[in-house]
Amino acid sequence: MSVESAKKLAAYKAVDENFPPAAKVVGVGSGSTVVYVAERIGQLKNKHQFVCIPTGFQSKNLIIDNGLQLGSIEQYPDVDIAFDGADECDPSLNLIKGGGACLFQEKLVAASAKTFIVVADYRKKSPKALGTNWTQGVPIEVVPNAWVKVSSELKKLGAKKIDLRSGGNAKAGPVITDNNNCLLDVDFGAIEDPEALHTKIKALVGVVETGLFCGMAQKAYFGEESGEVSVLAK
Amino acid sequence: MSVESAKKLAAYKAVDENFPPAAKVVGVGSGSTVVYVAERIGQLKNKHQFVCIPTGFQSKNLIIDNGLQLGSIEQYPDVDIAFDGADECDPSLNLIKGGGACLFQEKLVAASAKTFIVVADYRKKSPKALGTNWTQGVPIEVVPNAWVKVSSELKKLGAKKIDLRSGGNAKAGPVITDNNNCLLDVDFGAIEDPEALHTKIKALVGVVETGLFCGMAQKAYFGEESGEVSVLAK
Repeated sequence: MSVESAKKLAAYKAVDENFPPAAKVVGVGSGSTVVYVAERIGQLKNKHQFVCIPTGFQSKNLIIDNGLQLGSIEQYPDVDIAFDGADECDPSLNLIKGGGACLFQEKLVAASAKTFIVVADYRKKSPKALGTNWTQGVPIEVVPNAWVKVSSELKKLGAKKIDLRSGGNAKAGPVITDNNNCLLDVDFGAIEDPEALHTKIKALVGVVETGLFCGMAQKAYFGEESGEVSVLAK
Repeated sequence: MSVESAKKLAAYKAVDENFPPAAKVVGVGSGSTVVYVAERIGQLKNKHQFVCIPTGFQSKNLIIDNGLQLGSIEQYPDVDIAFDGADECDPSLNLIKGGGACLFQEKLVAASAKTFIVVADYRKKSPKALGTNWTQGVPIEVVPNAWVKVSSELKKLGAKKIDLRSGGNAKAGPVITDNNNCLLDVDFGAIEDPEALHTKIKALVGVVETGLFCGMAQKAYFGEESGEVSVLAK
């Protein structure tokens, strides 16, 4: 068994074990494992009886490509279940998300969901504190003209390194999110209390949202290197 | 004496009593009393030795029209002093701001300022709790597709009435801020603990900033109906 087939197995298992038969509103995230979630949801016989809420651009395409009904969170603010990936997941199901620059919409959908299920590959599972496995920093969405002020406040909160995320080369400008904001990738080292850190960061003038998702996920399904699926649950 | 000349008197007094002679970075807000602040700052002999940071569109024009140097908050994140108006000011110098839709930039500049001075006319001075004088609600800047979710959370926090601010008539769309967000005007009745309320609102997914400015202003100068100036200080 390959990791790829383990990811598919994890995604299918996550859908099969959790999808509510009477679901009316379903959040569909993005990431290489969620591709299989969308595929599995697209195989459901009642697929025209619920709408799917996307968490970003790739997510919207996954919904369309699998013949599912696209809905908007403004019209369907009460989400029955949402599936999404994560960049890192600790043993208490706290997450770092936002490597794909869609953390705001991802958090809005997760926060609107009665049940939020994470699907990912084994590399996203951290045995210890957040920030130990995922070393690219906590993504933080910031109003563009506040980024200098926010950066100086983040240093007071213990930031060791702050990168304004760019398009990847010297010619590219900063990455601009769906909400016309920019992203800071902030290295805090090992994060012992992610909820407390999130609360302090979110309170800063200029911060729209953080990539720390605390107390939101109920279960996580991981495709293991061995080809098996491991499940973390509250 | 008219109210108008009292506003001018208040503005001039605020500048004369507080402007640091060695100031390098000055925040200039907006509002009918701040017009006279900008006028007074424009009369300073050292007006080419500091830059002025605007809090919005009207503010930028005030700076330019008075021959002052326009600067940006990203280049000058440490503001020596800022002057701005308010929609309501309580006896502890807590404010409601955002009637002009620029609350985000206003708060960013105020939060970046060593000293923050309010100038306004007497109608903005509330003898009691915030929300008793200014009855149009607390402006809250919200990411557009989160406004339904945020509204339902605001009701849980005690909101009595929530208006998505529009351009003023049926044909106008929602007001869009400088940061491409929308505004909710939220009636909470009399606000006994504005700081606690602000903290709860800012923590919501989708809230960019609130119009509650708590513990930020050091002094307020009011042009009184009698033509006099009254000063509130910490």
